[in-house]
Amino acid sequence: MTHTSLFPMSVLYKPIGIITSGHLFAVKTPIQPVYARGCPGRVELFPEYADGLRDLEGFSHLHLIYHFHKADPAQLLVRPFTHPEQRGVFATRHPARPNSIGLSIVRLVRIDGLFLYLEDVDILDGTPLLDIKPFIPRFDWVENATPGWTACVGDEEARQLGLRQFAGQDAACE
Amino acid sequence: MTHTSLFPMSVLYKPIGIITSGHLFAVKTPIQPVYARGCPGRVELFPEYADGLRDLEGFSHLHLIYHFHKADPAQLLVRPFTHPEQRGVFATRHPARPNSIGLSIVRLVRIDGLFLYLEDVDILDGTPLLDIKPFIPRFDWVENATPGWTACVGDEEARQLGLRQFAGQDAACE
Repeated sequence: MTHTSLFPMSVLYKPIGIITSGHLFAVKTPIQPVYARGCPGRVELFPEYADGLRDLEGFSHLHLIYHFHKADPAQLLVRPFTHPEQRGVFATRHPARPNSIGLSIVRLVRIDGLFLYLEDVDILDGTPLLDIKPFIPRFDWVENATPGWTACVGDEEARQLGLRQFAGQDAACE
Repeated sequence: MTHTSLFPMSVLYKPIGIITSGHLFAVKTPIQPVYARGCPGRVELFPEYADGLRDLEGFSHLHLIYHFHKADPAQLLVRPFTHPEQRGVFATRHPARPNSIGLSIVRLVRIDGLFLYLEDVDILDGTPLLDIKPFIPRFDWVENATPGWTACVGDEEARQLGLRQFAGQDAACE
């Protein structure tokens, strides 16, 4: 038995802000923060959410949850950027997902009013932000996770491919 | 200058499945997977997304992104479950958020067709699932993250409060 029939509903979210970065083109955007070390970026929170930022300073890292606004249409099988074989989209972090939700753990440098200054930003300029959650070591530390199919890609190969065409043009990102 | 005026848009997502668990009441639901060790749960993926599961086996942990369907209305200041002081909602993982998006890292036990059998599930029964992303150690490992205001709560106190009224009634969860 499936629950599909019980779930006609859709979920509507409103962006709470916008993410700006030096990444103007998807093909030149690193695929993960680990390949965007030092890349600066900024959240501009919309003014009506300002009070929600209280106490955020002091966390070094944040989860940003955002909408992949430039993603290709969803596919159930995708070719990951780090490997030529097709994989199920839920076994990848590829943006062409049924719901175009992105997740990045970025470094929080400082907060100035509605602006969050960030590093390790792998997010396309102009991306709509849906949520900010602090990275809490006590909650988010996962030990002994196994890497599934990604084990077949070496660290250096993953890095080279994960940078995409981003080559550290901006000195601040290297 | 704010970008608000450029962002009238909303984002519409459709659940890709439903999460079932033994957690029938919010007040008896642990607040994080770390306080739900061993708690079983299941994803039932809707059939139209079946192909997206390919290659997911082999990952020990998954990020589930879901809709807090029973969350209280959004507040910008909330009292975290682990501490009595009010905090900005974006500095907490509280469900009463402007966009009611939940994020849990759960353990994948096995996959059987459209069903993902899970452990460490801190998610309310009947929760609409929006996305599945594999936990990839190479991407998701964050070193030296600082815990912000949560440093003022001891580990054991956080655990006691983080269990909420969940007391391991189900032997499988202890």
